[in-house]
Amino acid sequence: MNASPTDPLVLFMPSGKRGRFPVGTPVLDAARQLGVYIESVCGGRATCGRCQIEVQEGNFAKHKIVSSNDHISPRGAKEERYDRVRGLPESRRLSCSSMILGDLVIDVPQDTVVNAQVVRKSASDRVIERDPAIQLCYVEVDEPDMHKPLGDLDRLKVMLGKDWGFDNLLVSQHLIPEVQKILRKGKWGVTAAIHRDLEASRPNIIALWPGLHNEAYGIACDIGSTTIAMHLVSLLSGRIVASSGTSNPQIRFGEDLMSRVSYVMMNPDGREAMTKAVRDAISDLIVKVCAEGGVDPDNILDAVFVGNPIMHHLFLGIDPTELGQAPFALAVSGAVHTWARDIGIKMNYGARIYMLPCIAGHVGADAAGATLSEGPYRQDRMMLLVDVGTNAEIVLGNRQRVLAASSPTGPAFEGAEISSGQRAAPGAIERIRIDPETLEPRYKVIGTEQWSDEPGFDDESWKTGVTGICGSAIIEVVAEMYLSGIISEDGVIDGSLATRSPRIIQNGRTWSYLLREGRQGEPRITVTQNDIRAIQLAKAALYAGVKLLMEKQGVETVDTIRFAGAFGSFIDPKYAMVLGLIPDCDLSEVKAVGNAAGTGALMALLNRNHRREIEAEVRRIEKIETALEPHFQQLFIDAMALPNKVDPFPKLSAAVKLPPRKTVSADGVAGDSTPRRRGREGHAARRARE
Amino acid sequence: MNASPTDPLVLFMPSGKRGRFPVGTPVLDAARQLGVYIESVCGGRATCGRCQIEVQEGNFAKHKIVSSNDHISPRGAKEERYDRVRGLPESRRLSCSSMILGDLVIDVPQDTVVNAQVVRKSASDRVIERDPAIQLCYVEVDEPDMHKPLGDLDRLKVMLGKDWGFDNLLVSQHLIPEVQKILRKGKWGVTAAIHRDLEASRPNIIALWPGLHNEAYGIACDIGSTTIAMHLVSLLSGRIVASSGTSNPQIRFGEDLMSRVSYVMMNPDGREAMTKAVRDAISDLIVKVCAEGGVDPDNILDAVFVGNPIMHHLFLGIDPTELGQAPFALAVSGAVHTWARDIGIKMNYGARIYMLPCIAGHVGADAAGATLSEGPYRQDRMMLLVDVGTNAEIVLGNRQRVLAASSPTGPAFEGAEISSGQRAAPGAIERIRIDPETLEPRYKVIGTEQWSDEPGFDDESWKTGVTGICGSAIIEVVAEMYLSGIISEDGVIDGSLATRSPRIIQNGRTWSYLLREGRQGEPRITVTQNDIRAIQLAKAALYAGVKLLMEKQGVETVDTIRFAGAFGSFIDPKYAMVLGLIPDCDLSEVKAVGNAAGTGALMALLNRNHRREIEAEVRRIEKIETALEPHFQQLFIDAMALPNKVDPFPKLSAAVKLPPRKTVSADGVAGDSTPRRRGREGHAARRARE
Repeated sequence: MNASPTDPLVLFMPSGKRGRFPVGTPVLDAARQLGVYIESVCGGRATCGRCQIEVQEGNFAKHKIVSSNDHISPRGAKEERYDRVRGLPESRRLSCSSMILGDLVIDVPQDTVVNAQVVRKSASDRVIERDPAIQLCYVEVDEPDMHKPLGDLDRLKVMLGKDWGFDNLLVSQHLIPEVQKILRKGKWGVTAAIHRDLEASRPNIIALWPGLHNEAYGIACDIGSTTIAMHLVSLLSGRIVASSGTSNPQIRFGEDLMSRVSYVMMNPDGREAMTKAVRDAISDLIVKVCAEGGVDPDNILDAVFVGNPIMHHLFLGIDPTELGQAPFALAVSGAVHTWARDIGIKMNYGARIYMLPCIAGHVGADAAGATLSEGPYRQDRMMLLVDVGTNAEIVLGNRQRVLAASSPTGPAFEGAEISSGQRAAPGAIERIRIDPETLEPRYKVIGTEQWSDEPGFDDESWKTGVTGICGSAIIEVVAEMYLSGIISEDGVIDGSLATRSPRIIQNGRTWSYLLREGRQGEPRITVTQNDIRAIQLAKAALYAGVKLLMEKQGVETVDTIRFAGAFGSFIDPKYAMVLGLIPDCDLSEVKAVGNAAGTGALMALLNRNHRREIEAEVRRIEKIETALEPHFQQLFIDAMALPNKVDPFPKLSAAVKLPPRKTVSADGVAGDSTPRRRGREGHAARRARE
Repeated sequence: MNASPTDPLVLFMPSGKRGRFPVGTPVLDAARQLGVYIESVCGGRATCGRCQIEVQEGNFAKHKIVSSNDHISPRGAKEERYDRVRGLPESRRLSCSSMILGDLVIDVPQDTVVNAQVVRKSASDRVIERDPAIQLCYVEVDEPDMHKPLGDLDRLKVMLGKDWGFDNLLVSQHLIPEVQKILRKGKWGVTAAIHRDLEASRPNIIALWPGLHNEAYGIACDIGSTTIAMHLVSLLSGRIVASSGTSNPQIRFGEDLMSRVSYVMMNPDGREAMTKAVRDAISDLIVKVCAEGGVDPDNILDAVFVGNPIMHHLFLGIDPTELGQAPFALAVSGAVHTWARDIGIKMNYGARIYMLPCIAGHVGADAAGATLSEGPYRQDRMMLLVDVGTNAEIVLGNRQRVLAASSPTGPAFEGAEISSGQRAAPGAIERIRIDPETLEPRYKVIGTEQWSDEPGFDDESWKTGVTGICGSAIIEVVAEMYLSGIISEDGVIDGSLATRSPRIIQNGRTWSYLLREGRQGEPRITVTQNDIRAIQLAKAALYAGVKLLMEKQGVETVDTIRFAGAFGSFIDPKYAMVLGLIPDCDLSEVKAVGNAAGTGALMALLNRNHRREIEAEVRRIEKIETALEPHFQQLFIDAMALPNKVDPFPKLSAAVKLPPRKTVSADGVAGDSTPRRRGREGHAARRARE
């Protein structure tokens, strides 16, 4: 359609796409021509109600367009009928039945928000522009005609070409025996689900229903080694209808990744057993989210999965042994397209599965998901993205260049190898502050509202007990010990403080900090010199990985930092920086982004273009193997200090009052002569830390 | 590569393709550039031996090219090694290792001949140019590298792109868990089977073997209602390694097509049971041809099926009920691409299935196969192609226009509804002659060498007995009765002849012809007036269908006639014309082409271009529904006469001495006054008939 310069100008929000269209053009057609995605199942029959829009009113000086009711055709008979049958809010129009009469600003409602419930501590809600791989298309098929003996399926394909522009459609084999019954049941009106991810195949009819079928759902799932997290999403509105999680049942074969690889190596049926376990758990979780969202699992047509390389391989039925040893060869690194039925996941029989690409042998599809979600490559600023687990996956880059690496942090950040460490569960200490004058701690326990120095804490905490320190609190306690001068920048507990506080206690040749004595039946909770060493090793590994990538990028600082994953969701970025997990950065630019891998899966589910985007990006990302970098060892040693020995941290210093530099000898005796002025600094420093 | 006019000229036979190539170009590369299909699995490593060619010697004035040994590079080290290990005939060269040095005529050996054993009574052997959908590609994959952490499968794909030109390959899901083991077992050298039928999907890796794998087979199968016929073919050489057949086990659910449809309608599990029966029979037949050919079923990678619409639907698991009633709607008419495993046929797990398109509700994929085989659309002459069964499928056309129809001949031609009719089996009369003077018959029986009037017949025929008349002989006996004057052109037995011969016997109000009295325990074999009426009805239906298509084409005669199917293989074309099954035509242009449907399947198996050819042709064919043509009834009535009442048959008359026209009243008494001169005509007519 050729528009003239005098034709009405139409602007679509929030995409901002605009164009001129002849008077009388349906708004839906205008949107299609501009590439603005508006859902429509019924193909302009005004029966599905999916193509709703809102017309903005008022004078939009910025766009120099005035919208008013006489710039769009009035509600016609079709919309009135839809309103009677299904209800159409006053402010809404069906774009298939609304004609452009003059300049317009059109709002395309984006019901798709990844809200706080879904991504914990997400800095802001996120709008994902929708263009899912699945499209529902209602068509009315010609009845059979002896003069033109084209088959029923073939006439369906003709109509999908005519009404929806699909040429040369493939058809999933399982539908071939069903097509006649469905067409007749629908009195020749049927809805086809078309899978149109061209990387997987030509457009393909994967499901078929009699009449108008107005439901299509998808699953976005992050297969973690500990937890499987899932969103159930309407592909037609983008709305998350349910989110849930479950433990990864593979834990019974091995707590961490390497023990699962060992299990496969030691047991002939180990791989099969773990594959079955995770697939069954996912099928069960689908049943659960479907029950929660009131959705028939048969209406799930697409699913996107992410996971670290070992989870990725076990899910796909691939032996992960090669990932347990150099050169850590992935069986497949590119995105995987397959059918749910081939993987044994219970959804619609024709449902598709998409798995994001893996970046490297230690940097999996989960890291790709997080990269898609946070998008370092979409911006000019230098972004550091870290996902901390047994291995820290590190991505650093911007529009020009993105690097990725994995660093062997070990399990200390998850509370393992820590004397009083435990999982995040009721009874675990999750927050800690230490008074720099008295060296007395105050803390918060999961399951208890009050802090330990507030009234009612003892009564409340009695219910769960106080049982240990969870991963995020370990970071905090070590950072607070540093900020309060209990440990030096080398991480040595200053034994000379024992004279000032009974909490500094001797423990053989080293010293410990007594966090809590414990009531009857409760453990005594201390932070030992060994605990601090374990945290130092872990943070040094992470920091050395980050530093290596910064050196490769040729940068001294990063502009913004994203902490992904459960660990990142719970730690306070400030403490992470005090401890030297991450390089110096404006504190306001350090953000926890929760399950960014899951958000990436959701994006790939809701918009097929995001699949191409991350596939291209993963090909472009430069992979750095820390084990092959001779320089890595030196960076690691240098990063043992708190915050760290060699790098400046002006931004952290500006935000947090750091203690003066001092050194403590190996036996924990202070050798620094700088006079301490805690009395003067105490209040300000404490305020800054909270 | 740009060639200059002074570069050597290379001509490939039998395709006749030619071009100029710089000195030093490998012959294989030249063939590829010209689109001449030469197999190669090893990719020019001179290990697979599949790219053999022969260099023609001598002076080919027609082509003005002189080939001689110094126009091609001498046998090099690679060919010598291949000769030592696997043997290379003196006359053969490996085209990957032979360089063009001067003008050449190259023979590409075509081992693919559909020989006499396969297509019974095939007029001539046929060469099918090969370009199968399956290609075997050997590659040597880079070992994993921590610096470039591309997955094993991804590096395999890179190499298939580099060495074989495949971009963006799909991979069958079942291979993903296997790829690492196979690559390591093959020490990074593997052979991939690529399915490259672009109508089905993008090129797709469907099988993978360690090292060089030099075996790939395919199945071409015609699913008849009575018999399933199968060829096992090497996709690499085109050679048919085994052919076999088996009864269609669906016979136990119903003898003919309509009774099978009824069975489905009456029994809830009828469709499932018949689908399972035919699929199991096909799987068993695969085991049989594999045993015969010494082939591992796991090396079968592709299969092409044809069948009439009901066989087609039941094989695909489709309820055929709609085909049993107007408007005879096919569930699917277009070609079907699927996986053997989805259909439950036991071959390689990644094997593909292709099913030819159906032309109309009564004109199936078998007719499409016969059309592909005989190719009316490939020539200028008007070709009539008929496949006679319960329905006769009729195709009439040439390059300009092709029409197809089905005509309800009923089962008379198959021996049903005939008093002494039986299947072709030992003991059945298969050939008959009647002496026009004495009206005495002589006949041949299946299982006995001698004719009935030759010495030894009685002894030999005693072994099987003489039990009835098979389908092809029914045509002959009625035609002979007409030629000898026993019946009139209206098909009435002339009772007045009872005075001349004891073989004309009364049978109520009508007359019969006594063919054989029968020995003890044997039936008396007669041809009754009802038998002749049944044959007349059947032949009238066929002829009316043919005539209808001739009228639509606007032609009075056809140039050439092809009889496909078992019936066509056994009847003598001359008798078919005497009886008026087919229109007047030069007898030399009436040919039985055997299982042309199976030959079409074979063509589609060996050359994917034939798939596109028949798909396009089926879309173009004009389908005529005889039931909807008001004129059909009149044509049918007109066609009851022998040869027929209204159409001239000058060519038949020139070849066969026909009796003078006479009419016989309904009670079988001659009312014609034309004096008979049998004595004079007898000898010549008899000679012409033999």
